[in-house]
Amino acid sequence: MDIVFLLFDRFTALDAIGPYEVLSRLPGAKVRFVAAEPGVIRTDNGFLGVQADGRRDDVERCDILVVPGGKGTRALEADPATLEWIRKVHATTKWTVSVCTGSMILAAAGLLEGKEATTHWSRLEELAEHGATPTQARYVFAGDRLAIAAGVSAGIDLGLALVARIAGEDLARGIQLGVEYDPQPPFDGGSVDKTPAPVLAMVRAALAAGA
Amino acid sequence: MDIVFLLFDRFTALDAIGPYEVLSRLPGAKVRFVAAEPGVIRTDNGFLGVQADGRRDDVERCDILVVPGGKGTRALEADPATLEWIRKVHATTKWTVSVCTGSMILAAAGLLEGKEATTHWSRLEELAEHGATPTQARYVFAGDRLAIAAGVSAGIDLGLALVARIAGEDLARGIQLGVEYDPQPPFDGGSVDKTPAPVLAMVRAALAAGA
Repeated sequence: MDIVFLLFDRFTALDAIGPYEVLSRLPGAKVRFVAAEPGVIRTDNGFLGVQADGRRDDVERCDILVVPGGKGTRALEADPATLEWIRKVHATTKWTVSVCTGSMILAAAGLLEGKEATTHWSRLEELAEHGATPTQARYVFAGDRLAIAAGVSAGIDLGLALVARIAGEDLARGIQLGVEYDPQPPFDGGSVDKTPAPVLAMVRAALAAGA
Repeated sequence: MDIVFLLFDRFTALDAIGPYEVLSRLPGAKVRFVAAEPGVIRTDNGFLGVQADGRRDDVERCDILVVPGGKGTRALEADPATLEWIRKVHATTKWTVSVCTGSMILAAAGLLEGKEATTHWSRLEELAEHGATPTQARYVFAGDRLAIAAGVSAGIDLGLALVARIAGEDLARGIQLGVEYDPQPPFDGGSVDKTPAPVLAMVRAALAAGA
Protein backbone atom coordinates (compact mmCIF):
# COMPACT_ATOMS: atom_id res chain seq x y z
CA MET A 1 0.00 0.00 0.00
CA ASP A 2 1.83 3.06 -1.30
CA ILE A 3 0.54 6.15 0.51
CA VAL A 4 1.54 9.66 -0.56
CA PHE A 5 0.94 12.85 1.43
CA LEU A 6 1.15 16.14 -0.48
CA LEU A 7 2.77 18.90 1.56
CA PHE A 8 2.87 22.61 0.71
CA ASP A 9 3.76 25.87 2.35
CA ARG A 10 1.26 26.84 5.09
CA PHE A 11 -0.46 23.47 5.40
CA THR A 12 -2.20 22.56 8.68
CA ALA A 13 -0.17 19.92 10.48
CA LEU A 14 -2.97 17.90 12.08
CA ASP A 15 -4.80 17.61 8.73
CA ALA A 16 -1.91 15.45 7.55
CA ILE A 17 -0.73 13.85 10.78
CA GLY A 18 -4.17 12.60 11.85
CA PRO A 19 -4.65 10.27 8.86
CA TYR A 20 -0.90 9.57 8.70
CA GLU A 21 -0.96 8.18 12.25
CA VAL A 22 -3.83 5.85 11.29
CA LEU A 23 -3.04 4.87 7.69
CA SER A 24 0.67 4.29 8.35
CA ARG A 25 -0.42 1.37 10.56
CA LEU A 26 -1.97 -0.51 7.64
CA PRO A 27 -0.02 -3.75 7.12
CA GLY A 28 2.60 -3.23 4.42
CA ALA A 29 2.06 0.51 4.30
CA LYS A 30 4.81 2.59 2.75
CA VAL A 31 4.32 6.30 3.36
CA ARG A 32 5.94 9.16 1.49
CA PHE A 33 5.69 12.89 2.10
CA VAL A 34 6.24 14.93 -1.05
CA ALA A 35 6.15 18.60 -2.06
CA ALA A 36 6.83 20.68 -5.14
CA GLU A 37 10.46 20.70 -4.00
CA PRO A 38 11.89 18.35 -1.37
CA GLY A 39 12.94 19.91 1.93
CA VAL A 40 11.41 21.32 5.06
CA ILE A 41 7.88 22.66 4.56
CA ARG A 42 6.48 25.07 7.15
CA THR A 43 2.97 24.89 8.55
CA ASP A 44 0.33 27.63 8.50
CA ASN A 45 1.63 29.32 11.63
CA GLY A 46 5.28 28.86 10.64
CA PHE A 47 6.15 27.21 13.96
CA LEU A 48 6.64 23.71 12.60
CA GLY A 49 8.66 22.30 9.73
CA VAL A 50 7.88 18.90 8.25
CA GLN A 51 10.23 17.18 5.87
CA ALA A 52 9.13 16.45 2.31
CA ASP A 53 11.39 13.57 1.40
CA GLY A 54 10.26 13.42 -2.19
CA ARG A 55 9.53 15.64 -5.15
CA ARG A 56 5.85 15.81 -6.09
CA ASP A 57 6.38 15.44 -9.81
CA ASP A 58 8.40 12.26 -9.29
CA VAL A 59 5.18 10.60 -8.08
CA GLU A 60 3.29 9.24 -11.06
CA ARG A 61 1.03 6.83 -9.20
CA CYS A 62 0.14 5.66 -5.69
CA ASP A 63 -2.51 3.64 -3.90
CA ILE A 64 -3.67 6.37 -1.52
CA LEU A 65 -3.16 10.09 -2.07
CA VAL A 66 -3.81 12.36 0.93
CA VAL A 67 -4.23 16.11 0.47
CA PRO A 68 -4.33 18.15 3.71
CA GLY A 69 -5.69 21.67 4.05
CA GLY A 70 -4.48 24.92 5.50
CA LYS A 71 -4.01 28.53 4.47
CA GLY A 72 -1.71 27.39 1.70
CA THR A 73 -4.50 25.69 -0.22
CA ARG A 74 -5.62 28.99 -1.77
CA ALA A 75 -2.40 29.20 -3.75
CA LEU A 76 -2.64 25.58 -4.89
CA GLU A 77 -6.29 25.91 -5.91
CA ALA A 78 -5.13 28.41 -8.53
CA ASP A 79 -1.98 26.57 -9.62
CA PRO A 80 -2.46 24.66 -12.90
CA ALA A 81 0.58 22.39 -12.33
CA THR A 82 -0.76 21.26 -8.97
CA LEU A 83 -4.24 20.60 -10.34
CA GLU A 84 -2.84 18.69 -13.31
CA TRP A 85 -0.72 16.54 -10.98
CA ILE A 86 -3.75 15.88 -8.76
CA ARG A 87 -5.78 14.73 -11.75
CA LYS A 88 -2.96 12.56 -13.08
CA VAL A 89 -2.26 10.79 -9.79
CA HIS A 90 -5.94 10.50 -8.89
CA ALA A 91 -6.42 8.48 -12.09
CA THR A 92 -4.08 5.84 -10.56
CA THR A 93 -5.24 5.71 -6.92
CA LYS A 94 -7.41 3.26 -5.06
CA TRP A 95 -8.36 6.15 -2.76
CA THR A 96 -7.90 9.89 -3.02
CA VAL A 97 -8.33 11.51 0.37
CA SER A 98 -8.62 15.10 1.53
CA VAL A 99 -8.84 16.66 4.96
CA CYS A 100 -10.17 20.14 5.73
CA THR A 101 -9.62 22.64 2.90
CA GLY A 102 -7.60 20.03 1.04
CA SER A 103 -10.94 19.28 -0.61
CA MET A 104 -10.87 22.76 -2.17
CA ILE A 105 -7.83 21.61 -4.17
CA LEU A 106 -9.61 18.45 -5.28
CA ALA A 107 -12.66 20.54 -6.16
CA ALA A 108 -10.59 23.01 -8.16
CA ALA A 109 -9.12 20.04 -10.03
CA GLY A 110 -12.65 19.03 -10.98
CA LEU A 111 -12.70 15.83 -8.96
CA LEU A 112 -15.75 16.70 -6.86
CA GLU A 113 -18.13 17.83 -9.58
CA GLY A 114 -21.55 16.31 -9.02
CA LYS A 115 -20.44 14.71 -5.75
CA GLU A 116 -21.23 15.26 -2.09
CA ALA A 117 -18.24 16.76 -0.31
CA THR A 118 -17.13 18.60 2.80
CA THR A 119 -14.28 20.84 3.97
CA HIS A 120 -13.55 23.11 6.91
CA TRP A 121 -16.90 24.51 8.09
CA SER A 122 -15.78 28.06 7.32
CA ARG A 123 -15.54 27.34 3.57
CA LEU A 124 -18.27 24.75 3.16
CA GLU A 125 -20.50 26.80 0.87
CA GLU A 126 -17.63 27.47 -1.55
CA LEU A 127 -17.65 23.84 -2.60
CA ALA A 128 -20.81 24.52 -4.58
CA GLU A 129 -18.84 26.89 -6.82
CA HIS A 130 -16.99 23.82 -8.09
CA GLY A 131 -20.18 21.85 -8.68
CA ALA A 132 -20.02 19.80 -5.50
CA THR A 133 -22.87 19.38 -3.04
CA PRO A 134 -21.75 20.55 0.44
CA THR A 135 -22.69 18.17 3.26
CA GLN A 136 -22.50 18.63 7.02
CA ALA A 137 -21.11 15.11 7.47
CA ARG A 138 -17.84 14.70 9.34
CA TYR A 139 -16.57 12.73 6.38
CA VAL A 140 -18.03 11.43 3.17
CA PHE A 141 -17.15 8.69 0.73
CA ALA A 142 -17.92 10.39 -2.57
CA GLY A 143 -18.12 7.82 -5.30
CA ASP A 144 -16.02 4.72 -4.93
CA ARG A 145 -12.54 6.27 -4.67
CA LEU A 146 -12.88 9.63 -2.93
CA ALA A 147 -12.81 10.05 0.85
CA ILE A 148 -13.36 13.62 2.03
CA ALA A 149 -13.08 14.77 5.65
CA ALA A 150 -14.28 17.97 7.32
CA GLY A 151 -11.90 20.26 9.24
CA VAL A 152 -8.53 19.35 10.75
CA SER A 153 -9.27 16.65 13.35
CA ALA A 154 -11.86 14.93 11.12
CA GLY A 155 -9.03 13.20 9.29
CA ILE A 156 -8.59 10.83 12.23
CA ASP A 157 -12.19 9.64 12.02
CA LEU A 158 -11.96 9.33 8.25
CA GLY A 159 -8.66 7.47 8.49
CA LEU A 160 -10.22 4.82 10.72
CA ALA A 161 -13.29 4.50 8.50
CA LEU A 162 -11.01 4.09 5.50
CA VAL A 163 -8.97 1.36 7.23
CA ALA A 164 -12.23 -0.48 7.90
CA ARG A 165 -13.10 -0.33 4.19
CA ILE A 166 -9.63 -1.38 3.08
CA ALA A 167 -8.76 -4.00 5.68
CA GLY A 168 -11.86 -4.69 7.74
CA GLU A 169 -13.37 -3.66 11.02
CA ASP A 170 -11.05 -5.69 13.27
CA LEU A 171 -7.94 -3.93 12.00
CA ALA A 172 -9.64 -0.54 12.23
CA ARG A 173 -10.57 -1.27 15.83
CA GLY A 174 -7.04 -2.46 16.51
CA ILE A 175 -5.53 0.75 15.12
CA GLN A 176 -8.10 2.78 17.05
CA LEU A 177 -6.83 1.10 20.22
CA GLY A 178 -3.22 1.58 19.14
CA VAL A 179 -3.73 5.35 18.96
CA GLU A 180 -6.06 5.17 21.97
CA TYR A 181 -8.77 7.07 20.14
CA ASP A 182 -11.56 7.10 22.70
CA PRO A 183 -12.13 10.84 22.43
CA GLN A 184 -13.29 12.80 25.44
CA PRO A 185 -13.24 16.46 24.46
CA PRO A 186 -13.71 18.71 27.48
CA PHE A 187 -16.69 20.41 25.81
CA ASP A 188 -19.53 19.15 23.64
CA GLY A 189 -18.49 21.34 20.75
CA GLY A 190 -16.27 21.39 17.71
CA SER A 191 -19.01 22.12 15.19
CA VAL A 192 -20.95 25.26 14.36
CA ASP A 193 -24.20 23.85 15.74
CA LYS A 194 -22.65 23.00 19.10
CA THR A 195 -20.75 26.25 19.61
CA PRO A 196 -22.23 29.12 21.67
CA ALA A 197 -23.03 32.16 19.49
CA PRO A 198 -20.52 34.53 21.14
CA VAL A 199 -17.73 31.99 20.66
CA LEU A 200 -18.72 31.42 17.04
CA ALA A 201 -18.68 35.19 16.45
CA MET A 202 -15.20 35.38 18.02
CA VAL A 203 -13.88 32.59 15.78
CA ARG A 204 -15.44 34.08 12.64
CA ALA A 205 -13.84 37.44 13.46
CA ALA A 206 -10.45 35.80 13.97
CA LEU A 207 -10.75 33.94 10.65
CA ALA A 208 -11.78 37.13 8.87
CA ALA A 209 -8.70 38.82 10.31
CA GLY A 210 -6.54 36.08 8.84
CA ALA A 211 -5.82 34.15 12.02
CA MET B 1 3.47 31.98 26.09
CA ASP B 2 6.69 30.18 25.20
CA ILE B 3 5.89 26.56 24.31
CA VAL B 4 8.63 23.97 23.74
CA PHE B 5 8.14 20.51 22.22
CA LEU B 6 10.91 17.97 22.82
CA LEU B 7 11.53 15.75 19.80
CA PHE B 8 13.65 12.62 19.68
CA ASP B 9 14.34 9.74 17.33
CA ARG B 10 11.32 7.41 16.99
CA PHE B 11 8.74 9.70 18.59
CA THR B 12 5.05 9.26 17.68
CA ALA B 13 3.94 12.14 15.48
CA LEU B 14 0.36 12.58 16.68
CA ASP B 15 1.51 12.68 20.32
CA ALA B 16 3.21 15.98 19.50
CA ILE B 17 1.02 17.34 16.71
CA GLY B 18 -2.27 16.92 18.61
CA PRO B 19 -1.39 19.34 21.42
CA TYR B 20 0.66 21.50 19.01
CA GLU B 21 -2.41 22.10 16.84
CA VAL B 22 -4.36 23.22 19.92
CA LEU B 23 -1.76 25.04 22.03
CA SER B 24 -0.24 26.93 19.09
CA ARG B 25 -3.59 28.76 18.82
CA LEU B 26 -3.22 30.33 22.26
CA PRO B 27 -2.98 34.12 21.81
CA GLY B 28 0.66 35.15 21.77
CA ALA B 29 1.90 31.58 21.58
CA LYS B 30 5.46 31.07 20.38
CA VAL B 31 6.20 27.42 19.66
CA ARG B 32 9.61 25.82 19.31
CA PHE B 33 10.50 22.24 18.43
CA VAL B 34 13.85 21.16 19.87
CA ALA B 35 15.95 18.00 19.99
CA ALA B 36 19.35 16.94 21.30
CA GLU B 37 20.71 18.16 17.96
CA PRO B 38 18.79 20.38 15.53
CA GLY B 39 17.74 18.82 12.25
CA VAL B 40 15.19 16.39 10.90
CA ILE B 41 13.97 13.88 13.48
CA ARG B 42 12.29 10.69 12.24
CA THR B 43 9.14 9.23 13.77
CA ASP B 44 8.68 5.71 15.17
CA ASN B 45 7.94 4.17 11.78
CA GLY B 46 10.62 6.21 10.00
CA PHE B 47 8.16 7.47 7.38
CA LEU B 48 8.03 11.04 8.60
CA GLY B 49 10.67 13.62 9.41
CA VAL B 50 9.91 16.62 11.59
CA GLN B 51 12.29 19.53 11.87
CA ALA B 52 13.82 20.35 15.25
CA ASP B 53 14.67 24.01 14.79
CA GLY B 54 16.44 24.34 18.12
CA ARG B 55 18.97 22.55 20.29
CA ARG B 56 17.49 21.12 23.47
CA ASP B 57 20.26 22.31 25.75
CA ASP B 58 19.84 25.88 24.54
CA VAL B 59 16.42 25.87 26.23
CA GLU B 60 16.83 26.88 29.85
CA ARG B 61 13.26 27.84 30.54
CA CYS B 62 9.80 27.93 28.96
CA ASP B 63 6.16 28.38 29.92
CA ILE B 64 4.90 25.03 28.61
CA LEU B 65 7.07 21.99 27.99
CA VAL B 66 5.47 19.17 25.97
CA VAL B 67 7.02 15.69 25.92
CA PRO B 68 5.53 13.26 23.39
CA GLY B 69 5.86 9.48 23.50
CA GLY B 70 6.87 6.77 21.10
CA LYS B 71 9.27 3.89 20.84
CA GLY B 72 12.15 6.32 21.35
CA THR B 73 11.15 7.07 24.93
CA ARG B 74 12.88 3.94 26.22
CA ALA B 75 16.27 5.37 25.30
CA LEU B 76 15.48 8.73 26.88
CA GLU B 77 14.15 7.17 30.09
CA ALA B 78 17.68 5.82 30.65
CA ASP B 79 19.57 8.92 29.53
CA PRO B 80 20.83 11.01 32.48
CA ALA B 81 21.34 14.16 30.35
CA THR B 82 17.73 14.08 29.15
CA LEU B 83 16.36 13.53 32.65
CA GLU B 84 18.51 16.33 34.08
CA TRP B 85 17.28 18.70 31.33
CA ILE B 86 13.68 17.70 32.01
CA ARG B 87 14.10 18.45 35.73
CA LYS B 88 15.85 21.76 35.04
CA VAL B 89 13.26 23.06 32.58
CA HIS B 90 10.33 21.71 34.59
CA ALA B 91 11.49 23.90 37.47
CA THR B 92 10.76 26.93 35.26
CA THR B 93 7.47 25.95 33.57
CA LYS B 94 3.92 26.98 34.23
CA TRP B 95 2.89 23.61 32.78
CA THR B 96 4.82 20.46 32.00
CA VAL B 97 2.83 18.23 29.67
CA SER B 98 3.27 14.68 28.44
CA VAL B 99 1.37 12.59 25.93
CA CYS B 100 1.41 8.79 25.73
CA THR B 101 4.71 7.26 26.88
CA GLY B 102 6.19 10.73 27.21
CA SER B 103 5.06 10.37 30.81
CA MET B 104 7.56 7.54 31.24
CA ILE B 105 10.32 10.13 30.71
CA LEU B 106 8.78 12.46 33.27
CA ALA B 107 8.40 9.52 35.64
CA ALA B 108 12.02 8.46 35.15
CA ALA B 109 13.02 12.04 35.93
CA GLY B 110 11.18 11.72 39.25
CA LEU B 111 8.47 14.24 38.43
CA LEU B 112 5.53 11.89 38.96
CA GLU B 113 6.46 10.39 42.33
CA GLY B 114 3.43 10.30 44.59
CA LYS B 115 1.17 11.60 41.83
CA GLU B 116 -1.64 10.16 39.72
CA ALA B 117 -0.51 9.70 36.14
CA THR B 118 -1.29 7.94 32.89
CA THR B 119 0.47 6.84 29.71
CA HIS B 120 -0.24 4.58 26.74
CA TRP B 121 -2.52 1.78 28.04
CA SER B 122 0.11 -0.85 27.17
CA ARG B 123 2.59 0.55 29.72
CA LEU B 124 0.23 1.88 32.37
CA GLU B 125 1.30 -0.45 35.17
CA GLU B 126 4.97 0.49 34.72
CA LEU B 127 4.26 3.95 36.09
CA ALA B 128 4.04 2.42 39.56
CA GLU B 129 7.73 1.46 39.32
CA HIS B 130 8.47 5.18 39.45
CA GLY B 131 6.20 5.79 42.45
CA ALA B 132 3.27 7.15 40.46
CA THR B 133 -0.33 5.96 40.81
CA PRO B 134 -1.63 4.77 37.42
CA THR B 135 -5.08 6.06 36.54
CA GLN B 136 -7.44 5.04 33.72
CA ALA B 137 -8.31 8.71 33.05
CA ARG B 138 -7.84 10.06 29.53
CA TYR B 139 -5.79 12.85 31.05
CA VAL B 140 -4.93 13.99 34.53
CA PHE B 141 -3.78 17.24 36.06
CA ALA B 142 -1.27 15.97 38.59
CA GLY B 143 -0.49 18.66 41.08
CA ASP B 144 -0.73 22.24 39.89
CA ARG B 145 1.78 22.17 37.01
CA LEU B 146 1.68 18.70 35.47
CA ALA B 147 -0.74 17.69 32.71
CA ILE B 148 -0.49 14.06 31.66
CA ALA B 149 -2.39 12.49 28.75
CA ALA B 150 -3.00 8.86 27.87
CA GLY B 151 -2.02 7.40 24.49
CA VAL B 152 -1.43 9.28 21.23
CA SER B 153 -4.76 10.98 20.42
CA ALA B 154 -5.43 11.89 24.08
CA GLY B 155 -3.14 14.89 23.67
CA ILE B 156 -5.88 16.68 21.73
CA ASP B 157 -8.35 16.37 24.62
CA LEU B 158 -5.69 17.40 27.11
CA GLY B 159 -4.63 20.35 24.96
CA LEU B 160 -8.17 21.73 24.96
CA ALA B 161 -8.57 21.19 28.70
CA LEU B 162 -5.28 22.98 29.26
CA VAL B 163 -6.34 25.94 27.11
CA ALA B 164 -9.50 26.19 29.26
CA ARG B 165 -7.35 26.36 32.41
CA ILE B 166 -4.93 28.87 30.93
CA ALA B 167 -7.26 31.14 28.97
CA GLY B 168 -10.83 30.18 29.83
CA GLU B 169 -13.62 28.07 28.43
CA ASP B 170 -14.60 30.44 25.59
CA LEU B 171 -11.18 30.30 24.01
CA ALA B 172 -11.00 26.54 24.44
CA ARG B 173 -14.37 26.20 22.73
CA GLY B 174 -13.21 28.54 19.99
CA ILE B 175 -10.08 26.48 19.34
CA GLN B 176 -12.14 23.29 19.43
CA LEU B 177 -14.27 24.77 16.64
CA GLY B 178 -11.19 25.95 14.79
CA VAL B 179 -9.86 22.39 14.63
CA GLU B 180 -13.43 21.09 14.19
CA TYR B 181 -13.01 18.62 17.02
CA ASP B 182 -16.45 17.06 17.22
CA PRO B 183 -15.12 13.50 17.14
CA GLN B 184 -17.15 10.75 15.52
CA PRO B 185 -14.98 7.65 15.52
CA PRO B 186 -16.47 4.90 13.38
CA PHE B 187 -16.41 2.48 16.33
CA ASP B 188 -17.09 2.88 20.04
CA GLY B 189 -13.57 1.81 20.92
CA GLY B 190 -10.09 3.18 21.48
CA SER B 191 -9.68 1.86 25.01
CA VAL B 192 -9.01 -1.60 26.40
CA ASP B 193 -12.47 -1.85 27.96
CA LYS B 194 -14.23 -1.05 24.69
CA THR B 195 -12.17 -3.33 22.44
CA PRO B 196 -13.35 -6.87 21.54
CA ALA B 197 -11.10 -9.53 23.10
CA PRO B 198 -9.82 -10.96 19.77
CA VAL B 199 -8.82 -7.47 18.60
CA LEU B 200 -7.11 -6.74 21.91
CA ALA B 201 -5.18 -10.01 21.64
CA MET B 202 -4.12 -9.08 18.09
CA VAL B 203 -2.89 -5.65 19.19
CA ARG B 204 -1.03 -7.06 22.20
CA ALA B 205 0.69 -9.60 19.94
CA ALA B 206 1.69 -6.87 17.50
CA LEU B 207 3.10 -4.74 20.32
CA ALA B 208 5.01 -7.71 21.73
CA ALA B 209 6.48 -8.25 18.27
CA GLY B 210 7.72 -4.67 18.26
CA ALA B 211 5.14 -3.20 15.88
